[in-house]
Amino acid sequence: MRATVYHGPRDVRVEEVPDAALREPTDALVRVTHACICGSDLWPYRGELELYGRPGGRTGHEFIGVVEAVGSEVRTLRPGRRVIAPFAFSDGTCEFCRAGLQTSCRTGGYWGGPNDGGQGEAVRAPLADGTLVALPGEADVADHRLAASLATLTDVMGTGHHAALSAGVRPGATAVVVGDGSVGLCAVLAARRLGAERIIALGHHPDRLELARRFGATDVVTDRGAAAVERVREATGGGAAHVLECVGTAASYATAIGSARPGGVVGHVGIPPEPVGLLDVHMRNVRLAGGVAPVRAYIPELLADVLAGRLDPSPVMDLAVGLDEVPDGYAAMDERRAIKVLVRV
Amino acid sequence: MRATVYHGPRDVRVEEVPDAALREPTDALVRVTHACICGSDLWPYRGELELYGRPGGRTGHEFIGVVEAVGSEVRTLRPGRRVIAPFAFSDGTCEFCRAGLQTSCRTGGYWGGPNDGGQGEAVRAPLADGTLVALPGEADVADHRLAASLATLTDVMGTGHHAALSAGVRPGATAVVVGDGSVGLCAVLAARRLGAERIIALGHHPDRLELARRFGATDVVTDRGAAAVERVREATGGGAAHVLECVGTAASYATAIGSARPGGVVGHVGIPPEPVGLLDVHMRNVRLAGGVAPVRAYIPELLADVLAGRLDPSPVMDLAVGLDEVPDGYAAMDERRAIKVLVRV
Repeated sequence: MRATVYHGPRDVRVEEVPDAALREPTDALVRVTHACICGSDLWPYRGELELYGRPGGRTGHEFIGVVEAVGSEVRTLRPGRRVIAPFAFSDGTCEFCRAGLQTSCRTGGYWGGPNDGGQGEAVRAPLADGTLVALPGEADVADHRLAASLATLTDVMGTGHHAALSAGVRPGATAVVVGDGSVGLCAVLAARRLGAERIIALGHHPDRLELARRFGATDVVTDRGAAAVERVREATGGGAAHVLECVGTAASYATAIGSARPGGVVGHVGIPPEPVGLLDVHMRNVRLAGGVAPVRAYIPELLADVLAGRLDPSPVMDLAVGLDEVPDGYAAMDERRAIKVLVRV
Repeated sequence: MRATVYHGPRDVRVEEVPDAALREPTDALVRVTHACICGSDLWPYRGELELYGRPGGRTGHEFIGVVEAVGSEVRTLRPGRRVIAPFAFSDGTCEFCRAGLQTSCRTGGYWGGPNDGGQGEAVRAPLADGTLVALPGEADVADHRLAASLATLTDVMGTGHHAALSAGVRPGATAVVVGDGSVGLCAVLAARRLGAERIIALGHHPDRLELARRFGATDVVTDRGAAAVERVREATGGGAAHVLECVGTAASYATAIGSARPGGVVGHVGIPPEPVGLLDVHMRNVRLAGGVAPVRAYIPELLADVLAGRLDPSPVMDLAVGLDEVPDGYAAMDERRAIKVLVRV
């Protein structure tokens, strides 16, 4: 089969690899129909962080597809079912899965690297019963908008939701969203969905902030660093009780922490790549909550809203490519010509 | 009057200064009867951090005493009342005070530096109604144990309680306490008081860990760094849901974070002096809560327990000195000959 392989910085190639196949009785074999390129895929692409291991590893952790075969112990899925795969696999039965923290599953793991990646024709999905969420039969994925929305449930929409939940957003809240990438934009949607009345979006790209406004942002701030914090504090009388960190740099963490009101919460979903100064957190009793999003826990409720037309994150997928064009998709995201890329496999 | 003045690293002197006096109508003048030397007083003493400003600043932020005079707008205190002063003053009426976060009071501040410090004969106490907590008349502070216990309510006992509350300790919980200084020891007491069934104390001083056991610790761990984390994880099947960080170094934060179970909480009260790596926090969704303790909020309930004999933190005060011996008290704590020093003024 064909799949995307990481060869080194700015060198991903779609090439022939061994066919995905069942190995364990709890596996499902999934024929991928749609995958995505994630902002975090750019880290190895830019040589910043090993996400998929050494060169030779498979790439992609966001995909939806159709079950082609199941192992003998799979109970909830049958060939032909269309499924959404969260970006981590998990058994669904351990202490952490039962608590809704599937990213800490005792037997789980991540796609790509030595495992099949999402940016390929098929994937061996371990722990299929715990991991995959079946769609109702009638979902029409030929519709770009629906396919793109469903694809966001594999990662970015669930991650934005995790930021909002972790930050404690509730009806009537004022929330600050730091970051105008696809996760930040989904976080705006999530904050709105949880009832935030005022949503202040921080970013540096006018087109993305325009989309943030369409998604529910009531204010946008384009300043950086201390100036951005100053603007947020002016607008909120001293900071917001709920801040959603959706970038993952020392600067974005500092901005998020500074934007929080004393006693407030920063829900962080951007992976912190370097140590973060916590003195401001400490002196003002700002709480930090969040982390790698257990999107598996959120797919059912978000999916229901997508299928009912109440939630439409599809505009974050502003470029679609075929499998052979995945390298072009990486370049488009790297050069910020696209917010997020949908791969039609 | 005589008071302690900071002159530079390892140079604090008790000397003649202008008498404390009422200035604002909301002030009280407090004659100090007992003060303490705090672990954080050692930072300027060691030249590590300016806590009381430049040389010439007054020192000490923990004291109890007797009201000598009150300004015209003070409503709740009269001369002769014995009072406990939390380590920060606060108006008691602003948004943050009403929320129990008096350390973020909009008009509050800290003792020492340009303000009177606790390590002196008298203190002008601003915002007296919001700040000072009156004792019932019958408290016998000639009793060392009671005086020492009351003195812990100005800071360390309330700070330990803040760590436990922030970490979400509740009946039946397993809690890890990182640090065997006076705050860590009080945190053990606080965790026990909130109903923790198992309390694992981490430290490096056998005598202090023995006191931790007397205070309610069920396990002690004397390893450092990764070895300590390994021990805690072994003992708890993967980490504790509640961790109390009571030191304030990058190493102690790493140990506390590593000791937390995925989805658990680190309640931190040690001031983080340098940036902290958050990757482990992020990957395991460990929450960070806490900070500078609003001990004013906790004095009433802790005081009730002290007066009823249900709470006795006094053993953390293992050395008592007179006002003129304050410099010796600093040296004793700096050289770890004393856990914490009570100053009988």
